[in-house]
Amino acid sequence: MIYLDHAASAPLRASARDAWIGASAQVGNASSVHGSGQVARRLLEESRERVAAVLGCEPIEVVFTSSGTESVNLALKGLWWARGEGTQAIVLPDGEHHATLDTVGWLATQDAEVRSVPLDEFGRITAAPFSDALDGAALATALVVNNEVGTVQDAPSLARAASDAGVPLHLDAVGAVGHVPVVFDRWRGEARGSTGLVALSLSGHKFGAPVGTGALVVSRHAALVPLLHGGGQQRGLRSGTPDVPGAAALAAALEEAVAELTDEASRLTALAERLITGIRRAIPAAELLGDPLERIPGNVHVLFPGAAGESLLFLLDQAGISVSTGSACQAGVAEPSHVVLALGRDERAARSVLRMTLGRTSTAEDVDAVLAALPEAYARASGAGAARRS
Amino acid sequence: MIYLDHAASAPLRASARDAWIGASAQVGNASSVHGSGQVARRLLEESRERVAAVLGCEPIEVVFTSSGTESVNLALKGLWWARGEGTQAIVLPDGEHHATLDTVGWLATQDAEVRSVPLDEFGRITAAPFSDALDGAALATALVVNNEVGTVQDAPSLARAASDAGVPLHLDAVGAVGHVPVVFDRWRGEARGSTGLVALSLSGHKFGAPVGTGALVVSRHAALVPLLHGGGQQRGLRSGTPDVPGAAALAAALEEAVAELTDEASRLTALAERLITGIRRAIPAAELLGDPLERIPGNVHVLFPGAAGESLLFLLDQAGISVSTGSACQAGVAEPSHVVLALGRDERAARSVLRMTLGRTSTAEDVDAVLAALPEAYARASGAGAARRS
Repeated sequence: MIYLDHAASAPLRASARDAWIGASAQVGNASSVHGSGQVARRLLEESRERVAAVLGCEPIEVVFTSSGTESVNLALKGLWWARGEGTQAIVLPDGEHHATLDTVGWLATQDAEVRSVPLDEFGRITAAPFSDALDGAALATALVVNNEVGTVQDAPSLARAASDAGVPLHLDAVGAVGHVPVVFDRWRGEARGSTGLVALSLSGHKFGAPVGTGALVVSRHAALVPLLHGGGQQRGLRSGTPDVPGAAALAAALEEAVAELTDEASRLTALAERLITGIRRAIPAAELLGDPLERIPGNVHVLFPGAAGESLLFLLDQAGISVSTGSACQAGVAEPSHVVLALGRDERAARSVLRMTLGRTSTAEDVDAVLAALPEAYARASGAGAARRS
Repeated sequence: MIYLDHAASAPLRASARDAWIGASAQVGNASSVHGSGQVARRLLEESRERVAAVLGCEPIEVVFTSSGTESVNLALKGLWWARGEGTQAIVLPDGEHHATLDTVGWLATQDAEVRSVPLDEFGRITAAPFSDALDGAALATALVVNNEVGTVQDAPSLARAASDAGVPLHLDAVGAVGHVPVVFDRWRGEARGSTGLVALSLSGHKFGAPVGTGALVVSRHAALVPLLHGGGQQRGLRSGTPDVPGAAALAAALEEAVAELTDEASRLTALAERLITGIRRAIPAAELLGDPLERIPGNVHVLFPGAAGESLLFLLDQAGISVSTGSACQAGVAEPSHVVLALGRDERAARSVLRMTLGRTSTAEDVDAVLAALPEAYARASGAGAARRS
């Protein structure tokens, strides 16, 4: 099996698995006062310190969650519920992840006013409209790395704009952490109040921690209403018995991913170039989407004109190659990618894309296997695409 | 180490650990369309079917969550947000868990009207006030097993009352599942609409699954707004990449716990009696709280007049014995137990309790070790209690 869908879920790292197994042998609730509870507690707080050291924030600012989706929901709803009087607007760039889109969509039913910010043709958030939209807003949010086309935003500039406008900003760094440098302290700069960059989401299974782990970095100055009420764990921001094995595994995977980051970035960039070059040679009509330079290593997002992405996916799957269309596919109905539409492409283009994401286990042989299978798949899928349009 | 705090967290079962390790080796996001995603998906749906078979509900009614706290929050906030026009009341028995108390407390800041229902001296929800409170309510909630004193409620009667009143009921079965029979279908009876028993919470680590796993049974007819918006996983009720290893581990632990339930109940009841008898013999002033008969096997909740529970806990901890005061203890400040107060006891009593909870790994030797250590601890703690009051 050739796995080119690392952005959907990365294989579990051995270090994370071992950390989970080790921590799960410790009996006791980390909120308990007795000795065995305190052993669990120490393990939890050590994990928090390790995560904070890697992300560049204070340990108390790390809130462990169960997923990137939970982190995003906590940040957006939490900031919304804690907003000041009279400020109702949420700044929402186009092409955000569904965790953000659907959360803001629900808040819109609760009286939020949504201010959209367009992307340029490469998937970059346009700076002036973003700054303009911030005026008097309750909160703003942005993806650091677009999960489909892989474009990396200028996070420090977004944070500065939010800080200048006095608006709290959440960054969804789910696709970024472990893949590009993410340093909370550097990004938030000198602004350390309740505005500017105040929250940053991450998801464990995107960098080799177990699925079911995640975190939200929350500035100690941020005002946030919790999503989960209860025993008041984690500064009262996220009640529930802390998942100590999950936290230990997340810390182990994060440290390893960030330690390897520079080397892996070079290796994956070279592999991605090999893949892109090979695709262009075999299928001249194919077009790389997203920012050609400011993109995450390992992301190869390609428009195959005239071929349904869905057909390509199935044909490659039959050849033992796992890729993604990058679009939300619910209940078997493939929707056109809202991200590709946000780049200014039409609906046909938005149905004709494939996302191939290389990662830690990817090799040149994987790339060559895809290059061997793609031309025939494209020939068949563009035929299928033609048949479909008739 | 002698661990008598199984109600805080039960040791991880080997079957659950092995299921987690096995499932975590499978690469792929269960929401992905390709083959490796579908293998993960099958494992997830198999786990859902196994959980449903044990709990007596339909597979589609099992929503995996990250904890009991998340399940309770989803049920209560979800039902609240989905309530009909003009109905603002939440029926809340006294002595509920903090996940419920704090969630309802927050909803009260969002215009919910809270209707309290008293407990009797044994911790039982009083039937007539419960039924009365249901009239025109938006929703009702109740603990099946009180997490401190171990009293088991008459869940089918509560469900019937809610059904008769046309009110949706959530049962917090976190302390019940795996310890006393819980059969969703039998409890909801013939009422299978959007009222009566519609939701039931459970937490994995209370019966030997990993911490960080849980579920909410949600009737397929219930109207519920999700807590986590996003990709629309799990009927749209709980977005986020499904935690397949967690689900597989939860299913394994649940099956094992319920298969052992009858035998374990006998064994733990005998051990608990040995402990209670020994305590009464050594400390005649000690008093068992909670229902003497309708209580969970293994729960020994004792009032030690004149001794601070907190002091007893520390002294036993020094002797290598882990117990709990059963009260929420945040930031090192021990609060009097709101559950003991709800039984009609005074604040001094509510600070003089210990919860000892036996479980799967408990032995007669554990019980004898506690009985050997308690008299001296009590002598010192009641002295400490006296000194403290001076």
